[in-house]
Amino acid sequence: MKLLVLAIGGTIDKVYFDALSDYQIGTPAATEILQRVKVNFDFEVRQMISKDSLEMTDADRQEILSVVQDHSGKHVIITHGTDTMVETGQVLNQAAHKTIVIMGAMQPAIMKLTDADFNLGVAVAAVQTLSEGVYLCMNGRIYDVDRVVKNRAEGQFQDLGEGL
Amino acid sequence: MKLLVLAIGGTIDKVYFDALSDYQIGTPAATEILQRVKVNFDFEVRQMISKDSLEMTDADRQEILSVVQDHSGKHVIITHGTDTMVETGQVLNQAAHKTIVIMGAMQPAIMKLTDADFNLGVAVAAVQTLSEGVYLCMNGRIYDVDRVVKNRAEGQFQDLGEGL
Amino acid sequence: MKLLVLAIGGTIDKVYFDALSDYQIGTPAATEILQRVKVNFDFEVRQMISKDSLEMTDADRQEILSVVQDHSGKHVIITHGTDTMVETGQVLNQAAHKTIVIMGAMQPAIMKLTDADFNLGVAVAAVQTLSEGVYLCMNGRIYDVDRVVKNRAEGQFQDLGEGL
Amino acid sequence: MKLLVLAIGGTIDKVYFDALSDYQIGTPAATEILQRVKVNFDFEVRQMISKDSLEMTDADRQEILSVVQDHSGKHVIITHGTDTMVETGQVLNQAAHKTIVIMGAMQPAIMKLTDADFNLGVAVAAVQTLSEGVYLCMNGRIYDVDRVVKNRAEGQFQDLGEGL
Repeated sequence: MKLLVLAIGGTIDKVYFDALSDYQIGTPAATEILQRVKVNFDFEVRQMISKDSLEMTDADRQEILSVVQDHSGKHVIITHGTDTMVETGQVLNQAAHKTIVIMGAMQPAIMKLTDADFNLGVAVAAVQTLSEGVYLCMNGRIYDVDRVVKNRAEGQFQDLGEGL
Repeated sequence: MKLLVLAIGGTIDKVYFDALSDYQIGTPAATEILQRVKVNFDFEVRQMISKDSLEMTDADRQEILSVVQDHSGKHVIITHGTDTMVETGQVLNQAAHKTIVIMGAMQPAIMKLTDADFNLGVAVAAVQTLSEGVYLCMNGRIYDVDRVVKNRAEGQFQDLGEGL
Repeated sequence: MKLLVLAIGGTIDKVYFDALSDYQIGTPAATEILQRVKVNFDFEVRQMISKDSLEMTDADRQEILSVVQDHSGKHVIITHGTDTMVETGQVLNQAAHKTIVIMGAMQPAIMKLTDADFNLGVAVAAVQTLSEGVYLCMNGRIYDVDRVVKNRAEGQFQDLGEGL
Repeated sequence: MKLLVLAIGGTIDKVYFDALSDYQIGTPAATEILQRVKVNFDFEVRQMISKDSLEMTDADRQEILSVVQDHSGKHVIITHGTDTMVETGQVLNQAAHKTIVIMGAMQPAIMKLTDADFNLGVAVAAVQTLSEGVYLCMNGRIYDVDRVVKNRAEGQFQDLGEGL
């Protein structure tokens, strides 16, 4: 497997910034995590867009789709802000012959009590085991991108069928 | 999914102990991690054996097999010392109608630079997506328990076919 | 020593909040740190004000002064946002018979790479060893509150005499 | 201030090692911490001895004394295993014209819940504020090296006069 990781921005890559500083995205957390755990496969992490996911445009999503389609391999993970994962996933449904997993974190990777490491682990297993398509991995679950919603109050993603 | 996690001991659950103290295993890291990342499924973590995996006996492995077989659900993760995962996996091959994933960590979960969170994420996705059988998840890969070996020098698990 | 710690807010106690959430201050980091390191003296941590330090008013500072003066003991540490430490310190110069140390953090205590633990250690030693007065502890140094300035670009506090 | 930090070994610098590995001491934690918190003074960290403090010999302590005496500056911190800090301190009482602070950690610096950062902060403030002599800093207190003892059961250092 040659895994492509696209680091699009979002909470997972946020660094601390105070009221007098500009919005900042750090180097991709995925790189540090995949190296630290010594994954036994080839991977490339590419950083692009680097916006709060609430500010991503249709053009941004087309650019992501284009990069995904140009990737020579089958396996792609997108680290993404949690607020618009679903929108991006719906655009990526147009990619052919790829297994694409979108994931993110509720707490930045630089925090002691982050969910970034765990969520990336879920995504790495999912991208290897699932058939072609677009999936969203959060809270230890693998969701079909057409059947998932973020429940802000609970801080969790949930299946559309779970009666929110 | 009702996931059973058996915490058998090993590096993942190690706490610090100095030269004048006894060997100690802490409370299962899996409990803290699964709660912290707010997994959206039911799980039970049960602690048993609590030995260094080098000291596990055949009787210990039969006890684990027995607990796995008695579990009413299909999905089981075993957090395990890395030195004898394969031996335990071979005994668990006798369990019927279960998807069993064995995982561990090279660095304890209480360390800043642990691989425990990531590895547990891989295991959680694997146990949901794989068919019945016994698997070993380490270094971001999912191995057939009959075809994997620990490479101590590299600090990695590798497929038997990878020419160690 | 009966140490009073006033947790006023600021970066040290910040929790993660995203673009759709309100500003949030968590429980005081000082409590968790002082318990974790098992300090061998009595202490009380009291939370008050809980604003970004840029929004603190003269009335807020008078309220802090009042609490400090009412404390039965001599030793007081104030955990404070880094932008207006000096202003608060100048008001606290009116307190009599107290050793008051103001400190904070450039990175929140909940981050892996925080300076909160170290800075609080400096403050705890300073409050025990210094004579009555108001001091500011940052970057491993103990400053006279009348002779210190924050250098935003360097992310450091510096003595007024160091030729900024 | 030109601070000399001697990293002698002990819990603070321990890395994880398992039953099949040799005892290991990592690079000095003091270097990483002092850089991370951006201390505003010059320092040099020198690693020597690198044994469990229970195995230190009289010759080791004479070597430390010699390095301390040769240091051109006045301020010295020794990061040390907690079991024989007092013995080392008593040898260092022979050093003239130095302020020497001995400190360590109950939990290694690489752990999430370490006391290393805080304890080093205490030592850094103590070495700047105290007069010449040898001091031991643990648990947020500054002890005279002739009047302190480690209470193993409590995981704390205590003054000899506190009625252990």
